[in-house]
Amino acid sequence: MVNVGVIGATGYVGEELLRLLHAHNQVNVTCAVSKNFAGKNMGDVYSNFAVADDIPLSSGDYASIGKANDFVFLCLPHGQSIQAAPKLMDAGARVIDLSGDFRYEDTAIYEEWYGMTHTEKEKNDEAVYGLPEYFFEAIKNARLLANPGCYTTTSILALAPLLQNRLIEKNGIVIDAKSGVSGAGRKEQLAFSYCETADNFKAYSVIKHRHTSEIEEQLFRLCGNEITLLFTPHLLPVKRGILATIYAQLAPGVDAEKIATAYKKAYEKKPFAHILPTGALPELKQVVGSNNCVIGFDISERTGRVVIVSCTDNLIKGAAGQAIQNFNIMNGFDEAHALPRVAWYL
Amino acid sequence: MVNVGVIGATGYVGEELLRLLHAHNQVNVTCAVSKNFAGKNMGDVYSNFAVADDIPLSSGDYASIGKANDFVFLCLPHGQSIQAAPKLMDAGARVIDLSGDFRYEDTAIYEEWYGMTHTEKEKNDEAVYGLPEYFFEAIKNARLLANPGCYTTTSILALAPLLQNRLIEKNGIVIDAKSGVSGAGRKEQLAFSYCETADNFKAYSVIKHRHTSEIEEQLFRLCGNEITLLFTPHLLPVKRGILATIYAQLAPGVDAEKIATAYKKAYEKKPFAHILPTGALPELKQVVGSNNCVIGFDISERTGRVVIVSCTDNLIKGAAGQAIQNFNIMNGFDEAHALPRVAWYL
Amino acid sequence: MVNVGVIGATGYVGEELLRLLHAHNQVNVTCAVSKNFAGKNMGDVYSNFAVADDIPLSSGDYASIGKANDFVFLCLPHGQSIQAAPKLMDAGARVIDLSGDFRYEDTAIYEEWYGMTHTEKEKNDEAVYGLPEYFFEAIKNARLLANPGCYTTTSILALAPLLQNRLIEKNGIVIDAKSGVSGAGRKEQLAFSYCETADNFKAYSVIKHRHTSEIEEQLFRLCGNEITLLFTPHLLPVKRGILATIYAQLAPGVDAEKIATAYKKAYEKKPFAHILPTGALPELKQVVGSNNCVIGFDISERTGRVVIVSCTDNLIKGAAGQAIQNFNIMNGFDEAHALPRVAWYL
Amino acid sequence: MVNVGVIGATGYVGEELLRLLHAHNQVNVTCAVSKNFAGKNMGDVYSNFAVADDIPLSSGDYASIGKANDFVFLCLPHGQSIQAAPKLMDAGARVIDLSGDFRYEDTAIYEEWYGMTHTEKEKNDEAVYGLPEYFFEAIKNARLLANPGCYTTTSILALAPLLQNRLIEKNGIVIDAKSGVSGAGRKEQLAFSYCETADNFKAYSVIKHRHTSEIEEQLFRLCGNEITLLFTPHLLPVKRGILATIYAQLAPGVDAEKIATAYKKAYEKKPFAHILPTGALPELKQVVGSNNCVIGFDISERTGRVVIVSCTDNLIKGAAGQAIQNFNIMNGFDEAHALPRVAWYL
Repeated sequence: MVNVGVIGATGYVGEELLRLLHAHNQVNVTCAVSKNFAGKNMGDVYSNFAVADDIPLSSGDYASIGKANDFVFLCLPHGQSIQAAPKLMDAGARVIDLSGDFRYEDTAIYEEWYGMTHTEKEKNDEAVYGLPEYFFEAIKNARLLANPGCYTTTSILALAPLLQNRLIEKNGIVIDAKSGVSGAGRKEQLAFSYCETADNFKAYSVIKHRHTSEIEEQLFRLCGNEITLLFTPHLLPVKRGILATIYAQLAPGVDAEKIATAYKKAYEKKPFAHILPTGALPELKQVVGSNNCVIGFDISERTGRVVIVSCTDNLIKGAAGQAIQNFNIMNGFDEAHALPRVAWYL
Repeated sequence: MVNVGVIGATGYVGEELLRLLHAHNQVNVTCAVSKNFAGKNMGDVYSNFAVADDIPLSSGDYASIGKANDFVFLCLPHGQSIQAAPKLMDAGARVIDLSGDFRYEDTAIYEEWYGMTHTEKEKNDEAVYGLPEYFFEAIKNARLLANPGCYTTTSILALAPLLQNRLIEKNGIVIDAKSGVSGAGRKEQLAFSYCETADNFKAYSVIKHRHTSEIEEQLFRLCGNEITLLFTPHLLPVKRGILATIYAQLAPGVDAEKIATAYKKAYEKKPFAHILPTGALPELKQVVGSNNCVIGFDISERTGRVVIVSCTDNLIKGAAGQAIQNFNIMNGFDEAHALPRVAWYL
Repeated sequence: MVNVGVIGATGYVGEELLRLLHAHNQVNVTCAVSKNFAGKNMGDVYSNFAVADDIPLSSGDYASIGKANDFVFLCLPHGQSIQAAPKLMDAGARVIDLSGDFRYEDTAIYEEWYGMTHTEKEKNDEAVYGLPEYFFEAIKNARLLANPGCYTTTSILALAPLLQNRLIEKNGIVIDAKSGVSGAGRKEQLAFSYCETADNFKAYSVIKHRHTSEIEEQLFRLCGNEITLLFTPHLLPVKRGILATIYAQLAPGVDAEKIATAYKKAYEKKPFAHILPTGALPELKQVVGSNNCVIGFDISERTGRVVIVSCTDNLIKGAAGQAIQNFNIMNGFDEAHALPRVAWYL
Repeated sequence: MVNVGVIGATGYVGEELLRLLHAHNQVNVTCAVSKNFAGKNMGDVYSNFAVADDIPLSSGDYASIGKANDFVFLCLPHGQSIQAAPKLMDAGARVIDLSGDFRYEDTAIYEEWYGMTHTEKEKNDEAVYGLPEYFFEAIKNARLLANPGCYTTTSILALAPLLQNRLIEKNGIVIDAKSGVSGAGRKEQLAFSYCETADNFKAYSVIKHRHTSEIEEQLFRLCGNEITLLFTPHLLPVKRGILATIYAQLAPGVDAEKIATAYKKAYEKKPFAHILPTGALPELKQVVGSNNCVIGFDISERTGRVVIVSCTDNLIKGAAGQAIQNFNIMNGFDEAHALPRVAWYL
C-alpha cells in the first residue's frame, strides 16, 4: 500500500481524485487537506461521501505531510502549489501537482502568461510533464510531476502525431474548444450560477487563455518546430467534458490514410488515447466518466484542411484521472490500474 | 402615459419586470434603481438590454422618486420594502411591493414566520393583497399593493374554489411544490451554482417555508376556515416555472364533475387562470413565458383523494407579470394589457 | 468465474448492466443479446463501448443461452421476460429478471395493473422478490429472481421500517415521486425528445402507475397490513435519479427519535440503505452513480405528519446495480462486490 | 389587416411563427395547415396554445389557400415548398418560404448540395433572398421570398462587412458554429432524445453541411469574390440559439478600429443587427427570445487573425422572426413591428 496525501481536497478536482482513489486498492489516503473545511468531514462538503466511507478533513503542515506520505497530490490553484511542492519534496514525498506551476520548461513563458514570478526554478528543472502517451519513461522516476492542463491534454494528443509526421502546416492552426462548467472549479461566482449558465453558451478568455502557451511549448518539445496557434475556449452548459474542434492546413500530398496511420502508430498501444475510423467523430458521452481521450478527424478537400475533434473528461483525463495514471506509472503499477475505461454514457 | 419607477431593478424579478414593461405602451419608466449598480446601465448587468433600448441605473432617494412617479414597483427583499414603501407613498406614489412585507393581514403571522418585528402596521392595514382573481375590486384603488408570492399564487388558485365550495376536507392538505432556480434570486451562492444544481433535485425549507403561512392566511380569508397544511418546496434544475402537486381528501359525495364545475365558475372569466379538462394535467411548458396559471386535476377513487396540479411561471404570474396585472387594474386598463398569453413552449 | 448472458443489452438498463459488469472481476459475459442490433457491436450502439473492450451483439436462442450460462440477466420489457425466463431456466440457468413479470406473489394484481394474463404461474411461485435489505436469505438460492422496480425500491425502503414498527398510520400515505428520463427507456418518442423534456416538468400516469400495486403488495408482505396509497410520478429534466417525497400521518406518541431508531435498526448493517440524521434530506447528487438508497426525514408537528425523502439512481439501485447485488448474493459473494459506493456528485 | 396562412404549422418553426404572429396586430391568421394534425387544434399539439386563443388545424388545398390569403408562410421541409409555392403564387398569394428551396440564385448549387433536381427554375428566378440588412429594397416587392437559413444569417451578418471592405482574406475562413436542438425540428429521432442530447456535445454534418453553400453564394453576391470556407456545426444541449465562432486572416494593415468602423457603418441603422465594443463578445442569453443578431470580435496579434462571435435565436432571427421582418417590409410596415427586441435572458 502506498501512503498518499491529498491537498486541496474540497475543490472539484480534489473531490474527483478522492472518488477515484476510493476504488484504488493500492492506495491508503492518510490525509485530505482543506484550508476552508479542516475539522469537518468530506461528507459535510460533498454529500456523496456522507454515506460511504467518509474522510476527515485536516489542515496540517506540509513538512509533516511530506514526511508521512510516499506521495502527495496537490489540487491547489497555481501560485499555491509553487509554495507547497518544495516543502513536501524536501520532507521526502514525491509530488503530483495538478496546477500550472511546474508545467513549463521555460519559466519565462509561465511568468508571461500567468503574470507571476517563478520562485522555484530549481525545483522546476526537476519537474516532469506528465503526459503519459509521450513521456512515460521520464514519468517513472519523477519526484515532481506536473500534471497537464485539461485543454492541453485534449489538444496535444490530437495535434502531436500530425505535427511530428509533418502532415499539417505548423502555421494557422485553430483550436476551438468547449468545456463543461466544472473546469472553472467550485466557486461562488455569479458567472457560474445555474441561471446564468444553463441554456447559455459563450466564448471566454478569447485570444489570451493560458493553456495556449502550454500547448505551444509542449508541441514545440514534441515536434521541434515553434508553433503559434489560436485557441478559443467556450463554456458549455454541461458539468463535465471537453470537446476541441481543431482546424489545420494539410501538408502537400497528405490524405486521410496518412493521418490515420500516424494516429494509429502513436496510440495503438496506449490504453487511454483512441483514434476513431476516418470520418467518425467523438462526442462528450463517449468520454465523460472515463479516463479516455477519443480523437476523430475528417478531411475537407474543398479547403485543403483537416478537421480534428478530440474529447476528454476534464476532471478525469484532464485532471484527476491522468494524475492517477501518472501515479501508477511512478509506482510501477499498470498505468490503467483502477481507472475507468468505459464512459458513463448516461 | 404613466410614470413608473422600479426599485431593485437588477434582481431577477426587477429584470423581468423591466423586460415586460418594455412592451407596455402606457408606461414611461422614469428610473430604475439599483443599489449595487447605480451609475451603470442595465445592459452592463444584463446583456439582453445592451443592444435594445438600454436603461440607466440610478441610486436616487425614495422621497424624490415617490414624487416624480405615479407608480413605484418595489423588487426588494423583505425587510427593505417595509422601509421604502411608506416614504414613497408619503411622497405621493402608489406602490406595488413584490416582497412579503405587506402580504399579511395579521402581522403577528408575518413576525413569527419572517422573524422580524413589523414596524409599519398602519401602512399594512391599508395594503391590498394583489391576487386579481379574488380581490379585483379592492385592487382598483389600492395605494399599497402587496403582490403575492409565487408558490402562494400557484397554490391558492388551485385550492380556493374547492375549499370555498367545501369539496375537499380542510385538514390533511399536502402541497408538494417544485420551483425553478430563478426563484432563489440572483445570488453568488454555491448552492445555486451550475455544477451543484444541474442534474440535481432536492427538497428545501421542508416544514417551515414562509409561503406556508401566506397560503394558510389567504385560504382562511377566502374560505372562512382555518387551514393547516403541509407545504414542501423542491428545487428543479430549470430556470423558470413552478409546478405544485396538491393532495386533498374529497368531501363526501364529491365527484370530478363537481370539482370541474367549481373551477369553471371561479375562473371562466379570468384571463390568466385556466382549468384543463378532467384528467388532463399541466406542464411547465404550458406556462413558462406567460402570465398564465394552469390547473388540472384527477380523482383517485381508491384513496378518496383529488390530485391537483397547478403551474405558473414564477417570474411572471408568480411575480413581475402579476404585478403588471395589478398595475393595469389600478390604472383602469384591461388587466391583460401587454402581458404574454401564449407560453414559449421552447 | 461465472458465465453470464445479458438479454436486452441495448436498452438503457442493459447498457448500464454491461458497464457495471465490466468492472466485476468474477463475471465472464459470454453473450449480449439484442434483437435490433444483432450482428453489430455494443460500441456501434453506445459510443462509450467503442473504445474500451467492445462486446459483440448476438440474437441467439434462449435454450442454448440458458445452457451455456450460469446466470442470465433479462433486461426485456414486461411481457417478453415471461416468455424468455422459463426457457432459460429449463435449460439450466438461473435468471435475474428486471421486468415486472415475476414481481407479484398474487398474479391477479399483475393481471389487473399490467392488463395481461399471467401465463407462467408455476414459475412465478418460484420467483423471489429481490430486495436484499429484506429478502437476503430467500435470494441466496433463487432460481428466478424478480428484480424490483425503481420507484418501488425507493419507496419501500423508506416506508417499511415505519410501517413494520407501527410508527405511521397505514392510511393516507402519499408518495410524490420524481424520476429522471432514463426511467422511460431508450425510445424514439416525441415525449422524451430533448426539446420537449428539457426545462420542462410534469406529472404522468397519475393515479394509475403500475408501481403503485407493487409497492402496496410488498408493504403488505412486510408489514402484515393492507396498504392503499397514492403514488404520483413526475418526469424530471435529468437523465438519472429518483427522489420520492413521502407524506404519512404519525401514529400517536411517535417522535423523531422513534423514527430514527427504527431506520437505524433496519439499515445499520445494510451496505446500500442509509439514513441521514433527523432533518437532513438527501438529494439526487448523493446517489446518482452509486448503488445507494439514501433516506432522510423531518417531522411537521403542526400537521402531525412525517415527511420522508428517499433517493436512488434509477438505473443502479433501481435496476442494474440491484440486479448485480442480487447476483452477488446468489453466488455467495459479498453483496457489495464491484458496486459503486460513492456517487458521482458531478 | 393582412390575411395570412401558415402551412406546416406544427413543426417548431411553425409553432414559433404562430406564437409571434399572435402578438402582431396587423395579421389575421385565416388558416394553420398541418398534414399530420388536421382536424385537431394547435393546443392539442402544443400545450401552450390550449389555454390562450386556440387555433384550428386544417389540411386544405393550396389553390384555395392561395386565393383566400394575401400572404402564405411555408414552414415545410425543402422539397415540399418547391411544390407548394408555385400553386400558392398562381392563386394570387405572396409567399414567404422558410425552406432552402428558393434560396439559391444558381440552382446548380442547390442541386449539388441538396441532391435534388430543381423543378421550378422560373419561379426561382423571381425569388428574393430575404436578408433585410442587405436586400431591403428587393424584399419590398417580392412575390416569392426565400427566408435565409439560421446558420447562414448568423454567419453572413458577421462576415459580409469585413469581406466587402477587404479587411480579411477571402481564403481560409473557418466557421465553428454551435446550435440548439430545436434547429433539428420536431422529430421522433433517437439522436435528439433527452438522454442522448442532455450533457452531451458533438459536431455533425462536418465538411458537408448544406448551409456552407448558401453562405458561400451569398457572400459571393455581396462581396464579388468567390469564397470557399469551412463550416462545422455542433449540437448544443440547449433548446434555442446559435453561436458561431469565426476565424479569418486579417488583410495587411487592418486593425480593430477599421473592423469596428466597417461593422458600425453596416449596421448602425439596422434594428436587429448589433455590434459590440471591440473585445466584448455575445452569448446566447443576449439573443434568445429576440430577433437580434449580436456580433463581437477580437484581434489576435500573435496569429494575425480576427475572432468573430455572432449569435442569433435560430427560431427567431434564424427563421420565424426574420420571416415576419420580411413580411413587415413586404407590407410597408416598420420592419421591427411586433418583433421582440429584448431577449429573455432567463
